[in-house]
Amino acid sequence: MSKAMEMHEKWRGKIETKVRADMADAAVLALAYTPGVAEPCLEIQRDAARSFDLTRRWNTVAVVTDGTAVLGLGDIGPEAAMPVMEGKCALFKAFGDVDAVPLCIKSKDVDEIVCTIHLLSGSFGGINLEDIAAPRCFEIEERLKQICDIPIFHDDQHGTAIVTLAGLENALRLVKKDRAVAKIVICGAGAAGCAIAELLFAAGFGDITMVNADGVVRADGQYAGKLGMLAARTNKGGVIGGLADAVRGADVFVGVSAGGVLTQEMVRSMANDAIAFACANPTPEIMPDLALDAGAKIVATGRSDFPNQINNLLAFPGVFRGALDARAKDITLEMNLAASRAISALVTDKELCENYIIPSALDKRVAAAVADAVASVAQCDKSALST
Amino acid sequence: MSKAMEMHEKWRGKIETKVRADMADAAVLALAYTPGVAEPCLEIQRDAARSFDLTRRWNTVAVVTDGTAVLGLGDIGPEAAMPVMEGKCALFKAFGDVDAVPLCIKSKDVDEIVCTIHLLSGSFGGINLEDIAAPRCFEIEERLKQICDIPIFHDDQHGTAIVTLAGLENALRLVKKDRAVAKIVICGAGAAGCAIAELLFAAGFGDITMVNADGVVRADGQYAGKLGMLAARTNKGGVIGGLADAVRGADVFVGVSAGGVLTQEMVRSMANDAIAFACANPTPEIMPDLALDAGAKIVATGRSDFPNQINNLLAFPGVFRGALDARAKDITLEMNLAASRAISALVTDKELCENYIIPSALDKRVAAAVADAVASVAQCDKSALST
Repeated sequence: MSKAMEMHEKWRGKIETKVRADMADAAVLALAYTPGVAEPCLEIQRDAARSFDLTRRWNTVAVVTDGTAVLGLGDIGPEAAMPVMEGKCALFKAFGDVDAVPLCIKSKDVDEIVCTIHLLSGSFGGINLEDIAAPRCFEIEERLKQICDIPIFHDDQHGTAIVTLAGLENALRLVKKDRAVAKIVICGAGAAGCAIAELLFAAGFGDITMVNADGVVRADGQYAGKLGMLAARTNKGGVIGGLADAVRGADVFVGVSAGGVLTQEMVRSMANDAIAFACANPTPEIMPDLALDAGAKIVATGRSDFPNQINNLLAFPGVFRGALDARAKDITLEMNLAASRAISALVTDKELCENYIIPSALDKRVAAAVADAVASVAQCDKSALST
Repeated sequence: MSKAMEMHEKWRGKIETKVRADMADAAVLALAYTPGVAEPCLEIQRDAARSFDLTRRWNTVAVVTDGTAVLGLGDIGPEAAMPVMEGKCALFKAFGDVDAVPLCIKSKDVDEIVCTIHLLSGSFGGINLEDIAAPRCFEIEERLKQICDIPIFHDDQHGTAIVTLAGLENALRLVKKDRAVAKIVICGAGAAGCAIAELLFAAGFGDITMVNADGVVRADGQYAGKLGMLAARTNKGGVIGGLADAVRGADVFVGVSAGGVLTQEMVRSMANDAIAFACANPTPEIMPDLALDAGAKIVATGRSDFPNQINNLLAFPGVFRGALDARAKDITLEMNLAASRAISALVTDKELCENYIIPSALDKRVAAAVADAVASVAQCDKSALST
C-alpha cells in the first residue's frame, strides 16, 4: 500500500470536532445547552447578525463541491471528492485558523446546487466553492453572490488568479517589463484561465491572449457568458491559430491546461526573458529544465518539488481570514487584488531572483499578510460589509 | 448580562475544527493533499463504501434543523437555532465521540428540506434531525429513510421515546405493574408524543390513551398520517373528553406538552401508585412536589434540578455511536428498543427507588452501554447494514 493510502487509513478523516465547552460539567451543560442556550437563541432571533457573536459562524466556512472537477481527476463524484475537501478544511484551519466544513453535493444541476448552498448559508460565515466544473461553476458562483449575504469564493478561479498574479507581478519586476504592454498568453480557458484573465485585466495588464483546446479564443461570437466577454477583450493581435501561433513573441506563458502542451520550440519563439508558468498538475505544460534550456528566464509550476510554486494555499486561508475578520458580505475584485499584492510584496527586492518570485506555500507569514490586506480593503469598502 | 450570554460570547462557538494531519509539514502535506490525496479519491470512486475508511464519514453525523421547533421556543429560524445545534454537536462529541456538524436549513418546505439533506448525505455517516415541527418532521424523516443509505434519526421523536420508555420500564418495575394492562395517558400528540406511543406499543404496552389540545385523540377519522394510525390503536376505553377524563384511573401520565396542564385534582383521580412523567421544559406539566403531595408515587421531569430526569442525552450519543460502529444503514425500532433496555438496565434492583428510576444524564456508562446494544442489534439484522 502506498504511504498516502496508509496515512488516510490511519487518519480516517483529516479533521475532527473539538469541543470548547466542558459538556460533562453539569453547570456548564446548563449554560451551553438547556436551559441557558435559550437566551442566545432569542437574541439571534431578534437580530440575526448576532449569530456572528454567539455561535461559531464568525469563523466558519463551508467547503462545497459537486465532485465534478476534482484535482486533475475530473468528475469522480461527491463521496470520492471528500479526501480533497477534508484536506482543504485542514489547510484552512492550519494556515488561517478558519473552521471549515466539507460538504459534497450529490447533484450536477445548477439549480439544485445553488438552492442547497443558499439554504445552508445561514450556518456559515462564508462559502468556498471547490472543484466544480466550468462553465457551471461561473453561474453557481454568480447566482450565490446575488442571493447570499456572506462571501462566496470559488477557489479554483480566484485563488488561482490571485497567486498567479502575485507571481507574474514579481516575474515582470525581475525582468523589468511593463504589465501594460507585456504580451501574456493564457493556455486553458476554463475556470482558472478565465479568472486569471479577469484579474490580470483588473490589475492593469493590457495584452492578453487566451488559448483553449480549439485554438486561440477569438471574438467571433462562438463563446457565451464569461468567456464571451473575455473574447471581446483579448487577442489584441488578432492571432488566428493555435498555441504555437499565440506564444510567438509573447513575454509570458500561463498554463492552466494539460501536461506537455508547451514545446521547447514554442518557448524558443517567445520574446527575450520569457516567463513560463506551467501550472498543470501533476505534469506541467513543460518541465522546468526543458523550458529553461529553451531560453525561458523564469519558470513557475504548480509543484512543490520545483522553485516558484503557484499554490492556492498562498491565498485562500488568508482571503477568508480577512473576509471573516472584517465580516465582509462579499469577496470583491479589489480584495483579490489586495491579496495578490500582499503575497508578491513578501518577496523583497533583495530576495527576488529567478528561483524565488513567490513565497513558499508553507511560509507562515503569508496568510496573516493576506488577511490584513483583504480585511483593510473590505473595511474601506462599506458596501462589502455585513450590516 | 446573564452567565449563559456571557459564556456564549466567550465561546463564540461551542465546537471548532481540530486537524489530525500536520499540514504545515511538507511531507505530510504531499500525502494529505496533492499529490497523495488522489489515490484515496480514486479508491472511493471505485467503491463508495471506502469513504467510511478513508475519510471521517465513519464517525460523522449531520445535526440538521429548519429552526421551527427549537427547545420550547418554537419557530425561531435557522440562524437562531444554531446555539442549540452547536450544543447538540458538542454533546455528540463529549458523550459519544461522534463528530457532528450543525446545519440549519433556511426553508420550511418539505421538498426543499428533503432534497437538501439527501444531496449532502454522501458527506455523512448519519443524519440527526432536530427541532423540526410536527407533522412536517414525520414526512421528512420517512422520505429520507427511503432515499438515503445512512441512518436517519429524528431525536425529538425517537430519542425522547427511548428515554421515556427506559424510565417507564423501571417505574413499572418499582410499583410492580404489568405493562400489558397498565393504563398510560400521553399528553401531547406532537413528534415526541407520537413516537413515545409507537415505541411503547412496540415494547408490549397495551393500553395507551393520547390527549392533545383538542382533548382525547379518538378514532373518529379526523386525524391523518401517523396520528391517524395511532388513533386507531389508542383509547381502548373509548374516553370522550379532555385530560381530566383521560387520567381518571390511569396508572401513568406522560406529559410532552405544556407547563401546568396536570392539576393536583387530576393526580388524585389516578390509580394507586400513580406515575407522572412531567417532561415539558422548562415548566413541567406539574411540579414534582405538587404531584407527590397529590399522591403520585414516582415523578420524573425533563429538568436536571429534580430527580429522574428524562433527558435525550441518555440516548442519542450512544444510538449513533452504535449505528456508526455497526455501519448501519438505518436505525430501526429494534435498535431503539435495545437502546431503551440498555439504559433501564443500568439501574440495578438494589438501586431502584422512587428517586432513581433512570441514570443521570451525565452518567458516563450510558453511551457505551447504549452503543453496544444498538450495534449488536444492527449486526444481527443484516438488512440494516450497509453493503
